[in-house]
Amino acid sequence: MKLYDSRRAPNPRRVRWLMAEKAIEDIQVEDVDLFAGRHRTPDYLARAGIANVPALTLDDGTTITESLAICRYLEALYPAPNLFGLGARETAVIEMWTRRAEMMAATPLMMAVRHGHPALAALETQVPEVAAANRRSAERSLAVFDRRLGESEWLGADRVTIADGVLFIGMDFARMVRFAVPEALANLTRWLAAMRARPTATAGT
Amino acid sequence: MKLYDSRRAPNPRRVRWLMAEKAIEDIQVEDVDLFAGRHRTPDYLARAGIANVPALTLDDGTTITESLAICRYLEALYPAPNLFGLGARETAVIEMWTRRAEMMAATPLMMAVRHGHPALAALETQVPEVAAANRRSAERSLAVFDRRLGESEWLGADRVTIADGVLFIGMDFARMVRFAVPEALANLTRWLAAMRARPTATAGT
Repeated sequence: MKLYDSRRAPNPRRVRWLMAEKAIEDIQVEDVDLFAGRHRTPDYLARAGIANVPALTLDDGTTITESLAICRYLEALYPAPNLFGLGARETAVIEMWTRRAEMMAATPLMMAVRHGHPALAALETQVPEVAAANRRSAERSLAVFDRRLGESEWLGADRVTIADGVLFIGMDFARMVRFAVPEALANLTRWLAAMRARPTATAGT
Repeated sequence: MKLYDSRRAPNPRRVRWLMAEKAIEDIQVEDVDLFAGRHRTPDYLARAGIANVPALTLDDGTTITESLAICRYLEALYPAPNLFGLGARETAVIEMWTRRAEMMAATPLMMAVRHGHPALAALETQVPEVAAANRRSAERSLAVFDRRLGESEWLGADRVTIADGVLFIGMDFARMVRFAVPEALANLTRWLAAMRARPTATAGT
């Protein structure tokens, strides 16, 4: 297998974070330089189908894109520690929180960075209003996560799961636009410090 | 189990489509009137956690939101016909196409409707530029799906899967803003006609 990665981009980092949590070390990793347009070359497009990273090429030649599809595939091959759930009910709760983390926080924060940080102007026709609207949208969602983390140590289950990884990476990436969790959200602040303290916190950065 | 549904909304329709494909008839369904604000009542918020439909309350009292988390849960309980994949590789390919269908087409088309159709003004502070930008974004993605459907009869695998359901429901909902697949995209046009011809095409509408 070979992983097409890109340092600093948040979606590939989800895969690197999962690989670190599972101590997966036997997958070849190639860096794709987005700023040099390497994800738009005919070779890369023929392989991945679309100009996105990450992509994972399997031994049979199949290439999978979409970070969470890759993460779930690796979970099947490297089941320990479990990050996607055991049994239908736990799996559903973790997927619910993973999707909330992605759609209510990580994606809008990523859009705030892509449309708001000068370094990303090379990759995106930046619209300041899009950055601002996405940031507000993410900020409004924080109370939902803070409430959950007042009832549960971790977001998706009684242990770290992919839901925590997605929310953490989304928030950590948004430090580029000086995003910070308000101190008043004590549960979210506690959880974020715990995620930052894990040895996997810098994987893929 | 009890499903909190809302007729005409596209995300609950994914669950109803899956239930129809699997001929699931033993789940109680309650309609949540979004235009009457029934998804924002204290009772509903206490149950679902956020003001979204669909939601599925399990027999142990747990409530799951997020349409695709609910769909995957129902797949575990009602495995035939399989809609999410058999084995890690097929599951990953189907999840990749499901996420592409959602993020590149269904979500932007839903935003185009929410920000562009007069009937939705009650649910959304409409911004015409947001409607237009999302519509353009979805239209740009159609070539990716057309190419795939030139190589494969169905989007995710050699049979109908959840990936087809997500793309179909996204496109069908966008008829509200007169979205139509350009005839030049012959593979996508053929596939859309096949999806429309299935007995499940109107489930949840």
